[in-house]
Amino acid sequence: MSHEINELQQTLRQFARERDWEQFHTPKNLAAALSVEAAELLEHFQWLTDEQSRSIPAEKRSVIGQEIADVFLYLLQLSDKLEVDILAVARNKIQLNGAKYPVDKAKGSMRKYTEL
Amino acid sequence: MSHEINELQQTLRQFARERDWEQFHTPKNLAAALSVEAAELLEHFQWLTDEQSRSIPAEKRSVIGQEIADVFLYLLQLSDKLEVDILAVARNKIQLNGAKYPVDKAKGSMRKYTEL
Amino acid sequence: MSHEINELQQTLRQFARERDWEQFHTPKNLAAALSVEAAELLEHFQWLTDEQSRSIPAEKRSVIGQEIADVFLYLLQLSDKLEVDILAVARNKIQLNGAKYPVDKAKGSMRKYTEL
Amino acid sequence: MSHEINELQQTLRQFARERDWEQFHTPKNLAAALSVEAAELLEHFQWLTDEQSRSIPAEKRSVIGQEIADVFLYLLQLSDKLEVDILAVARNKIQLNGAKYPVDKAKGSMRKYTEL
Repeated sequence: MSHEINELQQTLRQFARERDWEQFHTPKNLAAALSVEAAELLEHFQWLTDEQSRSIPAEKRSVIGQEIADVFLYLLQLSDKLEVDILAVARNKIQLNGAKYPVDKAKGSMRKYTEL
Repeated sequence: MSHEINELQQTLRQFARERDWEQFHTPKNLAAALSVEAAELLEHFQWLTDEQSRSIPAEKRSVIGQEIADVFLYLLQLSDKLEVDILAVARNKIQLNGAKYPVDKAKGSMRKYTEL
Repeated sequence: MSHEINELQQTLRQFARERDWEQFHTPKNLAAALSVEAAELLEHFQWLTDEQSRSIPAEKRSVIGQEIADVFLYLLQLSDKLEVDILAVARNKIQLNGAKYPVDKAKGSMRKYTEL
Repeated sequence: MSHEINELQQTLRQFARERDWEQFHTPKNLAAALSVEAAELLEHFQWLTDEQSRSIPAEKRSVIGQEIADVFLYLLQLSDKLEVDILAVARNKIQLNGAKYPVDKAKGSMRKYTEL
């Protein structure tokens, strides 16, 4: 577990405790809130062409950075509640994806691994 | 920037490069994929009561951990593309939230800061 | 095809044409916009208990009605673009769900049909 | 209220009642399920170019039609629970959007009405 991740999760735990928000922070509600924030992030891109989305101006990137933070903070809180080590599962998932999508089969294709 | 976060982002960059997936990984597409994964995470909770969501069995938590990983991996890739320091924006957002939701006003309430 | 549904779709087609918005209204973008609006709808419920969500005050219901409209309008536009008869697929899906979830097996359970 | 919409909502009400699913179908849970289905719909488009999304093959369109049905069925159930007349709010929203996005200002632009 990373020191930085751990520290953020402790800060968030205290933040919620001080405001008596633990009653609202069920895993179910955190998952819903995460999904809502992910959509707010998507909203910034929804009418852009792929090209435009590749060259977001700095000012806009700063606004989008805040939405990224919102998603991340809920993800950290949900992981914390479920006692999921977010770095460990991420590393493990990359391994699994590597096996699902071997370079020679997946190269240049976005087909699902079940259709490769 | 955390060593661990940075390392994961480098691994993901190489993973995409090896598979020639960079053409698909526009910020717009990554934001859509992130949103789709966030919904898959939510799906595990959608019919649970709040009480049930507080006591997820270990086996189920491991499946949910994989969905958390999916969300996290897209979030890392999107941050990387937009050159957003995910730990920095997260810390900054907690500061902002602390100002928006002062303890005395926000205690025990989930009203939006605009309605406090 | 219902007269009312058809009429709404024609109105929406004209609305987009007058504003030269057809260039933005790719099925992909409409699906993203629909997903974003669905999350805005969910946002109204995210911190409510199930009980609270069962007794939404009239004023709030009117605000939520507007989000329902947003989702519906994108759904109508997407169906129109893809030449999907929304009433026909809905009726057909209810049939399929009836076969997937027979009363005697599904009664009182929200398990997925693959786990019944 | 359209005869067809009304009929679908009655069928869905009976479908849930027969399976004793009303206990799960709180507005909150229906809104979450709707959001999950909207993401499944988006998933079909997430890696497509805008061009590809404009020419979906018939077979794929039929699969996507089923996801459209899923979204629509939850939308009908949620409207029914909240006593929202879905056709009335849709028509009303088009009026509001017409005022927010007058043709001369909105032509060829996807900027938000607050930025026109």
